[in-house]
Amino acid sequence: MKSISKTETVRPIAWRDDALYVLDQRLLPAVVEYVRLSDSKAVANAIRDMLVRGAPAIGLSAAYGAVLALREAYRTDSSDWKSDFEARLQVLANARPTAVNLAWAIEQCGRLVRKSDGNPQAALLDLAHRLFEEDLAANQHMGDLGAALIDDDSSVMTHCNAGALATAGYGTALGVIRSAWQQNKLKQVYAGETRPWNQGARLTIWELSREQIPVSLLADSAAASLMRQQQLQWVIVGADRITANGDVVNKIGTYSLAILARHHGVRFMVAAPTSTIDWDMQNGEQVPIEMRESSELLPNSYQNEPDCPGTWNPVFDMTPAHLVDAIVTEKGVVMNPDPSKMAEFRSRIDS
Amino acid sequence: MKSISKTETVRPIAWRDDALYVLDQRLLPAVVEYVRLSDSKAVANAIRDMLVRGAPAIGLSAAYGAVLALREAYRTDSSDWKSDFEARLQVLANARPTAVNLAWAIEQCGRLVRKSDGNPQAALLDLAHRLFEEDLAANQHMGDLGAALIDDDSSVMTHCNAGALATAGYGTALGVIRSAWQQNKLKQVYAGETRPWNQGARLTIWELSREQIPVSLLADSAAASLMRQQQLQWVIVGADRITANGDVVNKIGTYSLAILARHHGVRFMVAAPTSTIDWDMQNGEQVPIEMRESSELLPNSYQNEPDCPGTWNPVFDMTPAHLVDAIVTEKGVVMNPDPSKMAEFRSRIDS
Repeated sequence: MKSISKTETVRPIAWRDDALYVLDQRLLPAVVEYVRLSDSKAVANAIRDMLVRGAPAIGLSAAYGAVLALREAYRTDSSDWKSDFEARLQVLANARPTAVNLAWAIEQCGRLVRKSDGNPQAALLDLAHRLFEEDLAANQHMGDLGAALIDDDSSVMTHCNAGALATAGYGTALGVIRSAWQQNKLKQVYAGETRPWNQGARLTIWELSREQIPVSLLADSAAASLMRQQQLQWVIVGADRITANGDVVNKIGTYSLAILARHHGVRFMVAAPTSTIDWDMQNGEQVPIEMRESSELLPNSYQNEPDCPGTWNPVFDMTPAHLVDAIVTEKGVVMNPDPSKMAEFRSRIDS
Repeated sequence: MKSISKTETVRPIAWRDDALYVLDQRLLPAVVEYVRLSDSKAVANAIRDMLVRGAPAIGLSAAYGAVLALREAYRTDSSDWKSDFEARLQVLANARPTAVNLAWAIEQCGRLVRKSDGNPQAALLDLAHRLFEEDLAANQHMGDLGAALIDDDSSVMTHCNAGALATAGYGTALGVIRSAWQQNKLKQVYAGETRPWNQGARLTIWELSREQIPVSLLADSAAASLMRQQQLQWVIVGADRITANGDVVNKIGTYSLAILARHHGVRFMVAAPTSTIDWDMQNGEQVPIEMRESSELLPNSYQNEPDCPGTWNPVFDMTPAHLVDAIVTEKGVVMNPDPSKMAEFRSRIDS
């Protein structure tokens, strides 16, 4: 695959010559390397091993993985391929069992194949391409809706990487930032390191600076001082799950930023596609928060020591709706979300 | 020097056999190694290269360095040693020009030598020992005063390392925690990583866990979630400078914790000796905040790249007095500090 130009928006995945190319995000920013995946098991491994990350990008990878799975099943036995395909699809679905978009993409692919007569290979590839293009278009529209809320000459802060790298190639929070930048509204972007995985330090500043968008990295704990001193207008983040009342579950540190933003009169924007909204969950207190291993935080010398100190290491946190100024989706914006505004939004997009 | 036992409180420095032993804190927690320093220049280098850190520990190291400086000057010329001593003292004073305690210790040593007749070597060593013992006693008293504010069965959080490692060997914030632990008041201590230097991850959890004080490490940005979920009673931190109105300058991230603590109904304690109070400075806005290099935050692959992203990397931040519930010193406690309560405290300790 040809190397990407330095100012073009990065794409985490691409379909070329009957194979899926995946940017190995574990190597960023030191090495920019696409890995060619020509069978469905390799795609499942890449998802599990986190070469690709970000819920939308994982879902899209799985859709292309399904295309490969179908090809493999067909090659094995072109008359009796269906159960083999389903087994291969299941391997993809299990690659990261908790990612909602992964299950959703697998479900779409499985349904198309099950209801088709004859050879659905071309139709399945079309579906994967369509999901990819829809994600891109949704992000771009979300970006414009979010950018409309940003005044000229603004500085903004973001957290983690809700960027091109996490989606088809535009981003949710970073999509809003891209759109605002293209509209000449942004003076400066600030990005928190995002401990313990450093998605801000490794991914976000790389993704933005290669497009000449001015970005500065800070320690997560410096955000409060930044807000007091640098006249931020917005904190803009993505979301892993939004509940029916407007509560937002996102990368650890998001809740902290929401409190600090409110304290300093900085506004707080969440950019996420409507597929992120879990209408079956009443509020964020109900969302289970995954706790991760001590090894992510402890110095290496503690590894394998029986008597080592403990850690408290949640991956996500929950920001209550009352600290959120705007939820921006591809289907519209909910200002000052609460249960009734969210219900109203739902009936608007369902109709 | 004999190795320290695993449950004894660690000492960052010790005078043995006419030399200063300094624990190389840069190697912690992987390696516990004392370096023998037998001349004053080696002490200056150890301070500059941060084998020893923490304002009180730096000051005490310099006092013992002055003892070595005097011995060297005396050996060189036992009749005309004074200007040689002053030159060596100056090298120590310049090791880290911004640390207040360093200048203060050097001043005390210089004054004693200048006003003495005859050979002041024994008197100077006595002074260094006295400063050491005074620091230890002040910390222990401060620890008891702080612990008196803590209820039984409490959990507390700290930031950076205001511990034995930063002082003669008991600590300011960690001194309060030690005293509360000895009084069976503490259920659990939480320590933030303290990016970008990881003093919490490298030093604080090591220092506390080796004394079996239950401590858990968390990402700095997880503090808000911790406060919502874990019923903390206090956040307890040290201070680099306290101004006349009760504003507190301390390691970056302290201000953030103070806002989050107030938001969650957690109380906020600052433990620091009275020598930390800068009565000549009206408020914390006047304290210049040192900005540090990009290399502390950027991934290694950006080093030496001309076009790399910027950083915003202040070492300290300022917590306004109104967010502080208690300032604990060796001479008493100021609750809810404000300019008049601070002035009243000053007249009490001066009289």
